Amino acid sequence: MAGIPASNIEPALGELKALLGDRLSTTAAVREQHGRDESSWHGVPPDAVAMAQSTEEVSEIARICTRYRIPMIPFGTATSVEGHIHALEGGISIDLNALNEIARISPEDMDCTVQAGVTRNQLNAYLRDSGLFFPVDPGADASLGGMAATRASGTNAVRYRTMRENVIGLTVVMADGQIIKTGTRARKSSAGYDLTHLFVGSEGTLGFITEVTLRLHPVQESIMAASCTFETVHNAVEAVIETIQAGVPIARIELLDALQIRAVNRVEKTDYPEQPHLFLEFHGTRSGVREQIVIVESLVLDHEGSNFAWAENQEERSRLWHARHNAYPSSLQLRPGSRALITDVCVPISCLADCIDESLNDIAASRIPITLLGHVGDGNFHLLILIDPDDADERAEAESINHRLVKRAIAMGGTCTGEHGIGRGKREYLIEEHGAAVSVMREIKRALDPHNLMNPGKIFLQES
Amino acid sequence: MAGIPASNIEPALGELKALLGDRLSTTAAVREQHGRDESSWHGVPPDAVAMAQSTEEVSEIARICTRYRIPMIPFGTATSVEGHIHALEGGISIDLNALNEIARISPEDMDCTVQAGVTRNQLNAYLRDSGLFFPVDPGADASLGGMAATRASGTNAVRYRTMRENVIGLTVVMADGQIIKTGTRARKSSAGYDLTHLFVGSEGTLGFITEVTLRLHPVQESIMAASCTFETVHNAVEAVIETIQAGVPIARIELLDALQIRAVNRVEKTDYPEQPHLFLEFHGTRSGVREQIVIVESLVLDHEGSNFAWAENQEERSRLWHARHNAYPSSLQLRPGSRALITDVCVPISCLADCIDESLNDIAASRIPITLLGHVGDGNFHLLILIDPDDADERAEAESINHRLVKRAIAMGGTCTGEHGIGRGKREYLIEEHGAAVSVMREIKRALDPHNLMNPGKIFLQES
Repeated sequence: MAGIPASNIEPALGELKALLGDRLSTTAAVREQHGRDESSWHGVPPDAVAMAQSTEEVSEIARICTRYRIPMIPFGTATSVEGHIHALEGGISIDLNALNEIARISPEDMDCTVQAGVTRNQLNAYLRDSGLFFPVDPGADASLGGMAATRASGTNAVRYRTMRENVIGLTVVMADGQIIKTGTRARKSSAGYDLTHLFVGSEGTLGFITEVTLRLHPVQESIMAASCTFETVHNAVEAVIETIQAGVPIARIELLDALQIRAVNRVEKTDYPEQPHLFLEFHGTRSGVREQIVIVESLVLDHEGSNFAWAENQEERSRLWHARHNAYPSSLQLRPGSRALITDVCVPISCLADCIDESLNDIAASRIPITLLGHVGDGNFHLLILIDPDDADERAEAESINHRLVKRAIAMGGTCTGEHGIGRGKREYLIEEHGAAVSVMREIKRALDPHNLMNPGKIFLQES
Repeated sequence: MAGIPASNIEPALGELKALLGDRLSTTAAVREQHGRDESSWHGVPPDAVAMAQSTEEVSEIARICTRYRIPMIPFGTATSVEGHIHALEGGISIDLNALNEIARISPEDMDCTVQAGVTRNQLNAYLRDSGLFFPVDPGADASLGGMAATRASGTNAVRYRTMRENVIGLTVVMADGQIIKTGTRARKSSAGYDLTHLFVGSEGTLGFITEVTLRLHPVQESIMAASCTFETVHNAVEAVIETIQAGVPIARIELLDALQIRAVNRVEKTDYPEQPHLFLEFHGTRSGVREQIVIVESLVLDHEGSNFAWAENQEERSRLWHARHNAYPSSLQLRPGSRALITDVCVPISCLADCIDESLNDIAASRIPITLLGHVGDGNFHLLILIDPDDADERAEAESINHRLVKRAIAMGGTCTGEHGIGRGKREYLIEEHGAAVSVMREIKRALDPHNLMNPGKIFLQES
C-alpha cells in the first residue's frame, strides 16, 4: 500500500462530497462491498466509494482525484475473478452501476450504444423480440463496461468471438478527466490508431469506459442445443478439436468434467450422468443446423461419445445453459467455505489435448478438489481449484498447479489468460508471455496515466 | 521538409553502408522509385534506400537512424493511394521486400506466420491445395506487412472482415531498434494491452512490422459468383442494404457504376452491359449457397435487377474478379495521363443509399470523369476522380468533392477512410472524425517515437 497522505485525501473527499452529496460514501459496509470480488483473495476496500451517474461526473471525479493524486478504481458488478477492483493502493472506487441506460439500438445496422453499467442480461432482455441479440456471455451477468475492460468472452465466443471483436466504439474518461470517443459506427475504418482495441482489455488502467458501442447479431432461424457424454476428458477434447478443424460454425461447445457434473447435479437437482460432458449449441438455418449436427454427431461417435440429450425449445435450452452458467457457484458448494483459484489458459487448438492431459495429471495428484470446464472450442479451459482461503499450503499448491499450467500454455504459443485478465495475480505471467512488449505497454501507461492513478497495481506494477 | 543536417546524414549513411554494403542505395532511380506510390500526388523520394533482409537488420537500421535523428519510412509494394511512402521529411526508405519468407503454416490451427514482404498472392499460391486461404483482398497484390500497417481490407471483408480481425500477432521493430512480439497464437487472450491492434493501422508511425501472424480460413465446399445489372446505382445499393440486413453471409458484394463498367469493358475486352452492376460471390456448403442465392436473387429482382450471369468454375470466377480488381487501372485509361484522387468513406449500412445518392449529384455536376465502385456490403465505396495531376483547378475540385463526401460520412457516424488509411492527405479529417481522441493518439506517438522519426508526417503532423 502506498498510503495516501491525509493532506491529499481530506480535501479530495471534500470536493467529491460537494460534487456527489450522499453518493459519496465512506461507510465500512459500502467500502467492504466495493473491495470484494469473486477472486480467491481477501478483499481490499477503497477509502471511499463514488456513485457516478454520468460520463461527465466520472470526468469530474477523475479531475479531482488527479489533482490530489488519489488512485481511482472503476467498479461494475464485482464479478472479476482476478482482483480487478481491489484497492491495492487505496483511493476511490467509482461505482458505474447507475450508468445503466441503453442509449441507442439501430436494428438496421445491427449495433447499439449502452452505458457502462448496463449488464448483458439487461441488454438481451431489452432486445427480446427485436430479432437481434448480444452474444458475449461470460456466465455472470456482468456489466458491459466491465466486460469491455477485461476483454471478456465466454460460451458463445467460438462462433461470435469476444469483446475484442464485438466492441466497435467507446466513450472513455482519461486520468485528467478528458472525455474521448473512440471508433465510429462504420463496419471498418483505417482512420488512425485503434484506440477502441487499446482500451478493451486495459482493465481500467488507461481510462475508464463509460459508454460502449456494440455489434449485435441476428437470432438465427434454428437453434438446437445438446449434451453428450464421454468415457474420458481426452476423448471429449479430441471430438472438440476435430469439430473446430472441420470448420463447423458451432455456436457453443463446452466441456465439463465428471466432478463438475456432480457439482451441477447436486445444486441444480439435475441428473446428468457423472461423466465428462460436452454441452453444445448449433445456430443457423434449419438445413444449416442439420448439416452441422450430422458432422458433429459423427465426430462424437468416433470418440465413443454417447447419451445425446437434445434441447430444442427455449425452456429446455435455458435449463441446459443455466446448469452450465452455474458451474462456478455449484463447484464452490462441493466444499463449503472454499474459494476458487481459477486458472484460465488458452492454447492453439492443436495443443489443447496435450495441455488438458497434463492438467489431468495435476488434478489426479492433488488432494484439493479441482473441477475442469471450459470453452474448449477456443482452446480455453479453467481449473476451479477449491482452496481453503486461509490455508497457506493449499494456496501454495493451487498456485503451483496454475504456475505449471501457465508455463505449459505459454510454451505452446498460448496465453496465461483467455478471458479473465491479468488483474493482480498474473503480472509476472504477462512478462513471461510478452517479454519486451511489456515495456511498450508500460510506456503507453506512463503516457496516458503519468501519475499511475488509474487502477494501480493491475496488469503490472508501475512506479507512481 | 525539415532538412536533415549533413552532419547527421553523412555518418548515418556511412554506418548503413557498413551494415548493408550494396543494399544501401542513393542512386536517383532507386530513390525515385521508392518515393512514388499510387496516390494522386507527385512522389517525394527519400535520401537513401536500405534493402533489409531480416528483422535484425531492420532493428540495426532503426538504431542508426535514431542515433542520427534520421526519418525512416517502411517500403513494401508502393500500392498505397495515400502517399504513405512519401519521404516528406527526407530520410531512409527501408525496403522490406526481401523479407519474403513464409515462416510457418499450421493447418490444424488455421494460422500462419509470414515475413512482412510476403504478398497476399504469394501466400495464397503457397496455400493452394491446403484447403485454406487468406481472404483479405485489397485488389493490388500488396505485401502483408503493408496491408497490416494500413488496416487494409477489400472485396472479401463483408464476410471475412479486414486486417484488423485477421492479424493475430506481429513482430515489430521500435524506433530505438527494440524488437517486440505482440499477440499469441491462442484464439483469444486477455493478457495486457492489445498491441497487435495498436500497430495494425498505425501506418509505420509507431513501429515497423517485420512479421505477421495471420488467421487463415477454410475454402468452402461450394463457391458461386455472379454479376447482375440495375437501372440505377440507387437500386443496386438498396438491394445490397437489404441483403446485409437479412443477415446473408455473402462473401463479396461489389458495386461498379456504368462508367466504371465501360472502363473495364474497354481494357479487359469484356462485354458487360454498360449499366450499374453488382458483382457477387457466395461461399458455403452446397445447400447453404443455394439458400443464400435464393434470398439474394429475390432481393435483386425486388429492385429491378436483371442480367444475372453466373460464374461457377474457377476460370469464370477468376475472369469476373480480374475485371473487378483491374477497375482502378482500367479507370485511369479512361483519361490517359490522369491520376486518380480516390475517396474512401465508409458509413453505417443504413446511411449508404443517402451517402451515395449525394455523391451521384456531385458526379453529375462535375466536368471531371469520375467512376464509382465499392465494397458496398461494408458501407464502403470509392469515387475515382480522374484528374490531370498538374491542373490545380481540377485538383481543387476533386478535393472539394472529397471534402463534402467526408463531411457527410462523418455526420452519418462513418469514417473518412474505410481501408486506405490517413496517410498525408486526410490528417485534418482524422481530427474532424476523432476530436479529442487524436490527442491520445499523439501522446502514444510521442511515447513510442519521441523523436518523431518513424514515417513522420503521416496520420498527423507532430513536432519533432
